[in-house]
Amino acid sequence: MTTDFAAPFQRPGERLEDLGLDGLYILQDPDAFRFNIDSVLLAWYAAPAVHRKTRTLDIGTGTGVLPLLLYGRTHTRSIDAIEIQAAMADMASRSVAMNHLEDVIRIQEGDIREEPGRALDRGAYDVIVTNPPYMPKGQGEVNPEPALALARHEIACTLDDVAAAAQALLKDRGKLFMVHRAERVVDLCAVLRAHQLEVKRIRAVQPFPDKPANQILLQAAKRGKAGTIVEPPLSIYQAPGVYSDEINAIYGTDGPKPKAFA
Amino acid sequence: MTTDFAAPFQRPGERLEDLGLDGLYILQDPDAFRFNIDSVLLAWYAAPAVHRKTRTLDIGTGTGVLPLLLYGRTHTRSIDAIEIQAAMADMASRSVAMNHLEDVIRIQEGDIREEPGRALDRGAYDVIVTNPPYMPKGQGEVNPEPALALARHEIACTLDDVAAAAQALLKDRGKLFMVHRAERVVDLCAVLRAHQLEVKRIRAVQPFPDKPANQILLQAAKRGKAGTIVEPPLSIYQAPGVYSDEINAIYGTDGPKPKAFA
Repeated sequence: MTTDFAAPFQRPGERLEDLGLDGLYILQDPDAFRFNIDSVLLAWYAAPAVHRKTRTLDIGTGTGVLPLLLYGRTHTRSIDAIEIQAAMADMASRSVAMNHLEDVIRIQEGDIREEPGRALDRGAYDVIVTNPPYMPKGQGEVNPEPALALARHEIACTLDDVAAAAQALLKDRGKLFMVHRAERVVDLCAVLRAHQLEVKRIRAVQPFPDKPANQILLQAAKRGKAGTIVEPPLSIYQAPGVYSDEINAIYGTDGPKPKAFA
Repeated sequence: MTTDFAAPFQRPGERLEDLGLDGLYILQDPDAFRFNIDSVLLAWYAAPAVHRKTRTLDIGTGTGVLPLLLYGRTHTRSIDAIEIQAAMADMASRSVAMNHLEDVIRIQEGDIREEPGRALDRGAYDVIVTNPPYMPKGQGEVNPEPALALARHEIACTLDDVAAAAQALLKDRGKLFMVHRAERVVDLCAVLRAHQLEVKRIRAVQPFPDKPANQILLQAAKRGKAGTIVEPPLSIYQAPGVYSDEINAIYGTDGPKPKAFA
């Protein structure tokens, strides 16, 4: 899809996708990392904590999908986002400009491991969201495409790096929202706690009501007290080919659903 | 209820309860700690790992309900059990004798913090089960009845004590099964990992399909690899007053269900 409003921002080979929310569009490279259901669920999970004046940061924004979806759900006035890959950060910036949201969403190219105290202020954020690389270094097949490898494997950024950065950048009692692989739930609990980020809510995402979880949504609090609400799981489908009521509510019954659902 | 077979074992004030499994009965003191659904679920969760020759240990056995239920489900030949409260250990021993299981179940009075290498051998157990005190010291109201306080609060035994003992007593790759409060899921993951016990499966127990979990069942492995299966939750009820199919299967559709269900 190409439309007139996108033409000044779109580069050859890039695809324009309708986010199905608030009239927002995003640029995606079909050959590189594309947003999927994880970002849609995380934006939905974090949105109730994001108000007009909340200062929000997205760590590892990729193509900028989380800031766009969070803005679409909340109309908040300030979202910062950081991305280590220059080409991704550039595409994200163009998507922001294409949606006329330069005053709200600031995309920053940078390395989160070196960032706190540089372009991003320590202790400044009320809310941090992140959809970090899922695979530990040395596990699973590494994609030969570097952009995909960096987004999926903990090459430039481990869970420990993300937690250390979030701890440094959040205000006290500030909230961290994350989506990650369910199989890493112990890593998540232990690593976040080691960085004074206490998991307060956890929600498993299952393909079906009777299947183990693939993903986990969680909310942690900086210097929060111990004590976690284990929420009932979110199922994608209620039966083969039939989305759950919650997924229909999150996407809109008639809205476009991402490829990952197919 | 009193019956002839129980008379030699039952003390005044004690109640005889039908475990609804394999013809087994248990003595309970209506004024002290009584077994509840947590033990029934834990025995069911652990049973597939307990075979005829498995060496199993129950840490903090209380009135001995877990060894009896595990025997009833598996007909295993060897279950050790340790309990710090002399009166509880005595009642558990009488329940074992009443069921003619002295050759299978050995109840030991002792303190798990001092135990490894004394009456219980280090590195000897294939499976450890435990339904430990749930409440951290200093949180929640402490029961004025000492027997109840010890069973419910981490007075004589913290989660860290249980994990340290389990680590010392399990064989390499040996399995720990535990039931605990859902709100302590981060403690569970972090404390167990600190003792080389890696959580491999976790199952939330919810009152209803759409409510947060009260309890958590988990299986950990000594020196196990990282990586956890987050199983779909177990719901007690499928609707108000209607037990779930799984609970009916665990208890038997017509079997007695514990007071905690009322």
